[in-house]
Amino acid sequence: MSRESLEERLRAIGAERYHDKHPFHDKLHGGECSPDQVRAWVINRWAYQAAIPMKDAAFLSRCTDPDMRRAWRSRIEDHDGGINEGGGLRRWLKLAEAVGLDPDYVASGRGVLPATQFAVDAYIRYVRDMPLLQAVASSLTELFAPSIHERRIEGLLEHYDFANTESLSYFKTRLSQAPKDVAYGLEWVLSHADTPEKEDMACEALTFKTNVLWAQLDALWGAYVEPARIPPGAWRPGEGMA
Amino acid sequence: MSRESLEERLRAIGAERYHDKHPFHDKLHGGECSPDQVRAWVINRWAYQAAIPMKDAAFLSRCTDPDMRRAWRSRIEDHDGGINEGGGLRRWLKLAEAVGLDPDYVASGRGVLPATQFAVDAYIRYVRDMPLLQAVASSLTELFAPSIHERRIEGLLEHYDFANTESLSYFKTRLSQAPKDVAYGLEWVLSHADTPEKEDMACEALTFKTNVLWAQLDALWGAYVEPARIPPGAWRPGEGMA
Repeated sequence: MSRESLEERLRAIGAERYHDKHPFHDKLHGGECSPDQVRAWVINRWAYQAAIPMKDAAFLSRCTDPDMRRAWRSRIEDHDGGINEGGGLRRWLKLAEAVGLDPDYVASGRGVLPATQFAVDAYIRYVRDMPLLQAVASSLTELFAPSIHERRIEGLLEHYDFANTESLSYFKTRLSQAPKDVAYGLEWVLSHADTPEKEDMACEALTFKTNVLWAQLDALWGAYVEPARIPPGAWRPGEGMA
Repeated sequence: MSRESLEERLRAIGAERYHDKHPFHDKLHGGECSPDQVRAWVINRWAYQAAIPMKDAAFLSRCTDPDMRRAWRSRIEDHDGGINEGGGLRRWLKLAEAVGLDPDYVASGRGVLPATQFAVDAYIRYVRDMPLLQAVASSLTELFAPSIHERRIEGLLEHYDFANTESLSYFKTRLSQAPKDVAYGLEWVLSHADTPEKEDMACEALTFKTNVLWAQLDALWGAYVEPARIPPGAWRPGEGMA
C-alpha cells in the first residue's frame, strides 16, 4: 500500500475502462461518422458539458475548506467563463454551429437522450452526496483526457470539413486546463486515501465515473449507430438545424 | 398585483423582521457588549460567513442557466476570494484577531453554538432544495444589509478600541458588494414572481431567511447575555485566545 501503488491502480482503471476504448470514438476519430452521427454526439455531449460546472458547484457546496474551494473554483470558471466572454460551454456551441446545428437548440438540452441525462445527473448527485474522497476521485478521468483530446483534434481535422481551430477550440483549451486540475485532484486523493479501505473507495469512484462516460456512448450508439433506434422525444436528423 | 406591490411586501418583511431589530445589535452597536460578548458574536457569526459560499455553490449546483451562474458566481468570489489574497472570510478573521481571538480557532468552527450551526445548515439546504424562485428570494436580506453595516461601522468605531479600518474591512467591503448582488436578485424575483402564488412563495423565502438570521442572535443572547447559559461544548470565555 503506497501512493505509487494507488496511482498505478487508478491508471489501470483508465487503461481498462476509459471511454477512449469505446468503439464510437474509433468511428468518430477515424472519419466514419455520418454528419448526423456527429450531430447526435455534439447534442448529447452538451448534456455532459452543461453538467460539469453544476457538479463542481455541488462539490463547493459541500466543501468546508475555503482553501480547497479556492483551488477548485477555477473548474467552474473554465467551463462557465465570464459574463461576456463565456468559457468551455460557449466553445462547445461553436462546435455545434460548425456541424450545422442551431446552438440555441443544442443549449436547450431538448433532444438529449434520456439515458445520457440520467448518467450526467447521477454524476452531479454522486459529487454532492458521496464521501469527499470519492467526490474528488471521480474527477480523475481527467488523467486520461488530454490523450483522447489530442487524438480527437487530429482525427477530426483529418476527416471532417467542419473541423478547424475555432470549431475545435473546446478541446484545444482543455489540453492546458485539465492537467492543472488533475494534478491537484490526484495529489489530494493520493494524500487522503491512506488506508486500504480508502484506496478501494477512490478506485470505486473512478470506476463509477468511467461508467458515467461509457454509458453516454452506449446510449448514443444504440440510438444513432446500431440498432439506430431513436427513443421517443430524442433528437431526429433534420431537427434543430441552424 | 404588480412588481411595485411585491417589492413593497418584501421591504415590509425586512422592516418587521430583519435582525437589525434584534436587541443584541443595539447592545453591540451601542458599545454595551463586554469583550467576551463581542468575541462570542465573532465566533458564531463565522459559522454564517463560512456557510455563505457553500450556499451560493449550492445555488450554482442546481442552476441550469449558464448566464445566471456567471452572474451569481461573483458571490462566491467575494467571500472566498483568490488562492493567495482570500476574500470576505479572511477579512472576518482579521476582526477575530482584532478582538483577541486565535483566527485558527475561529476558522475551525469549534465553539460555535449548535443552534447557530443548525440555522446556517438549514439555509444551505433551503437554497439547494427549494424552488429556484425561493432560493433567489432568500438572498434578498441583502436589501437591508448596507444600512446595518453602516450603523455597525459607526457604532463599533465609536465604542470599541479594536475597531479600525483593518478590523472592520469586512463590513466596509460589503457596502459595495451587496448592492450589486441584490440588484440582480431583486430584479430576478420581481420578474419571475408573476402569479399571486409565486409572490407568496418569494415572501415566505425572505421570511425564512430573516428567521435564519434572527435565530442566530437569539442563540447568542441566551448563551452569552441572558440567562447566559452556555450549552455544553460551546465557546467559553478564555478559550481560543491568540
